[in-house]
Amino acid sequence: MATEKLRISAVTITPVAFRDPPLLNSVGVHEPYALRAVVEVHTDGGLTGLGETYADARHLERLRAVAADIVGLDVYATEELHRRVGEIISRVGGVGGSGLTGMVTTSSTVDRVQSPFEVALLDIQGQACGRPVSDLLGGAVRGAVPFSAYLFYKWAAHPGAEPDEWGAALDPAGVVAQARRMVDAYGFTAIKLKGGVLPPEEEIEAVRALRAEFPGHPLRLDPNAAWSVETSIEVGRALDGVLEYLEDPTPGIEGMAAVAREVSMPLATNMCVVAFDELHPSVAVDAVQVILSDHHYWGGLRRSKLLSGICDTFGMGLSMHSNSHLGISLAAMTHLAAATPNLTYACDTHWPWKTEDVIEPGVLEFEDGSVAVPTTPGLGVTLDRDALAALHEQYLTCGLRNRDDTGYMRTIHPTYRATNPRW
Amino acid sequence: MATEKLRISAVTITPVAFRDPPLLNSVGVHEPYALRAVVEVHTDGGLTGLGETYADARHLERLRAVAADIVGLDVYATEELHRRVGEIISRVGGVGGSGLTGMVTTSSTVDRVQSPFEVALLDIQGQACGRPVSDLLGGAVRGAVPFSAYLFYKWAAHPGAEPDEWGAALDPAGVVAQARRMVDAYGFTAIKLKGGVLPPEEEIEAVRALRAEFPGHPLRLDPNAAWSVETSIEVGRALDGVLEYLEDPTPGIEGMAAVAREVSMPLATNMCVVAFDELHPSVAVDAVQVILSDHHYWGGLRRSKLLSGICDTFGMGLSMHSNSHLGISLAAMTHLAAATPNLTYACDTHWPWKTEDVIEPGVLEFEDGSVAVPTTPGLGVTLDRDALAALHEQYLTCGLRNRDDTGYMRTIHPTYRATNPRW
Repeated sequence: MATEKLRISAVTITPVAFRDPPLLNSVGVHEPYALRAVVEVHTDGGLTGLGETYADARHLERLRAVAADIVGLDVYATEELHRRVGEIISRVGGVGGSGLTGMVTTSSTVDRVQSPFEVALLDIQGQACGRPVSDLLGGAVRGAVPFSAYLFYKWAAHPGAEPDEWGAALDPAGVVAQARRMVDAYGFTAIKLKGGVLPPEEEIEAVRALRAEFPGHPLRLDPNAAWSVETSIEVGRALDGVLEYLEDPTPGIEGMAAVAREVSMPLATNMCVVAFDELHPSVAVDAVQVILSDHHYWGGLRRSKLLSGICDTFGMGLSMHSNSHLGISLAAMTHLAAATPNLTYACDTHWPWKTEDVIEPGVLEFEDGSVAVPTTPGLGVTLDRDALAALHEQYLTCGLRNRDDTGYMRTIHPTYRATNPRW
Repeated sequence: MATEKLRISAVTITPVAFRDPPLLNSVGVHEPYALRAVVEVHTDGGLTGLGETYADARHLERLRAVAADIVGLDVYATEELHRRVGEIISRVGGVGGSGLTGMVTTSSTVDRVQSPFEVALLDIQGQACGRPVSDLLGGAVRGAVPFSAYLFYKWAAHPGAEPDEWGAALDPAGVVAQARRMVDAYGFTAIKLKGGVLPPEEEIEAVRALRAEFPGHPLRLDPNAAWSVETSIEVGRALDGVLEYLEDPTPGIEGMAAVAREVSMPLATNMCVVAFDELHPSVAVDAVQVILSDHHYWGGLRRSKLLSGICDTFGMGLSMHSNSHLGISLAAMTHLAAATPNLTYACDTHWPWKTEDVIEPGVLEFEDGSVAVPTTPGLGVTLDRDALAALHEQYLTCGLRNRDDTGYMRTIHPTYRATNPRW
């Protein structure tokens, strides 16, 4: 007797905006709102699965094209989903609209667009068979997933607004104070500093100040390719023995390879290798030693597991990248990380910077810097309909339709230019 | 509410022997019986999953060590299974006992040993959630999986026995007659000849005779590394435009790379790249253009999908290898191939050479050279207890405990030596 299909009956895509502090990076500053899209996949059996992704206008267009095309698809047909998204992207176009503000420019549009649908289908599969998503990925090998404190240089407030609770961080003392507050609140056991904002010598000082304050915490520095090869090598040598890894010091596979040959610590990336077709060129020259995976642009959870297997096979380490995100993504990241044995670094998350969400609270709590893997069926998170409606209303009224850290910075500092490498 | 586990309550391992014709290859001749082990994984929920693997003595020992260790494991915990098998192999030893008679000598013992257990766990998962195993692998992208006719030089009979129904094939005419019979009976649309048996010029003639008789069938030749680099290049050039791919003409990654640089057709392998740690060295020198996957030594179905993703990522083609096997393996191969989009070559199978089986008949039928993907829950095959008992009895009485094509050949031709490359 053949099995019964469980078919997609409808898809809802809801763009939302949530408040975001003025976090600085190598191409500008976070705008007052971060945009995300909540994807709900409904089935004729009454189950609904959730996914979360970027919400820039071009990406939303593509999501809607996919949504219209996958009604009727069986929830286990993720290979067919991939094929269809490929077909749709070749029809509606794949250039532009990454939602990633120039930092992850070469990611595969197909993988970026299919990701929230794949996550939602796994959520439904899990609910249908009564299993957490981690079980569909091979089973959790750890009961809780460690995340890293994610420090930013920042202003005290967006222009014209009241200071946020974190205050300014624009020098080593400010960075250490931010870290102390974050580590005390969440228990993080690893620390990452977003760099590429101040001259390298100041960021080196900030890292050294963190080392002095947190002698046992692995430290990372991520200037988002703000440095030349020469500067990267100088910084890498200055921080020899201090950094667990150095993230994207300089642009491009060739540049990273040149740095890797001269510094002692592993180089990590979420910029020069962000798609499957960049793996072979990178492996060929040993450009990076750690890949920062991100299911939002690596095609979802199963393809992120493929990436993890490739890292294992080709001798690369594996960590996890984060953009500003909400609870659906944190749940997906936690299930994925739990079921990935070679994900041995604490994952990135912007979680502490977020004051609003679309899910019901209580599931994803930090303890000792880690999030316990949900053990209920599916992703284990539930939409808070009121919160979703409020953040959608905020999207409608906030006026933002694309992420543009550089443009926002230029409204404040008109002479600002995003140039990588800057130093 | 946390989900309920479905735990392994017991594991049964039953070695079986089934009649095998005197098929010739580069290291000898198939013995009168081929050995396999049937793995049954039982759960406390009453479901049983099936796996099939080699049955040489050393491998059986390892299977039994794993069987004793995994009682209590949840059926979704395949990552934990992999970890445990690794631990057990490091304890009981990983050298020797591949069941592969010297042809696939470097495969990973951990992956080889875990494979039948992983397949059985997926069989149970599928039954538990009411889905065919292909759905657990991303869903079938094809309703039927094409296989290739697998031609062998062969004697008419094992020494002292009655001729089998196929008769002898020791020259081009015999090979063409065998192909005609096999294609007519099964509808195969691709043809592979096992070579490395006769001098290369005779095998070239056989391939040319096949081309004349079957002008539309893709053709493959597999001498199992019987040739030097020079001979391989000569044969490759002689068969330019005739072969779909040339399989393992010469031993080793360096040798294959040297041949690949000089011949027009892709080179395929199930000998020089048979484990994940051989992929990087092979990719670095572009030694092979097609990997012949085989879930029996690539760690099961999920890890074979990882292999397929690696082939896709690093620009290699993907086909599927076969040893003499029974119906549990054919079911597993069919589900895997169905859910692997980039498996674009017809898969190998020894199926037509087999006259006995352990599963109830009727599920895996060939039509136009293809096997329809089972759509019932799990693998979709059921043990025939009487057949299993009979083939186990045959195992006990046949006297074979390890595959030894060379040793058997030497009982018939005492001066025979397995030397690769021979020509």
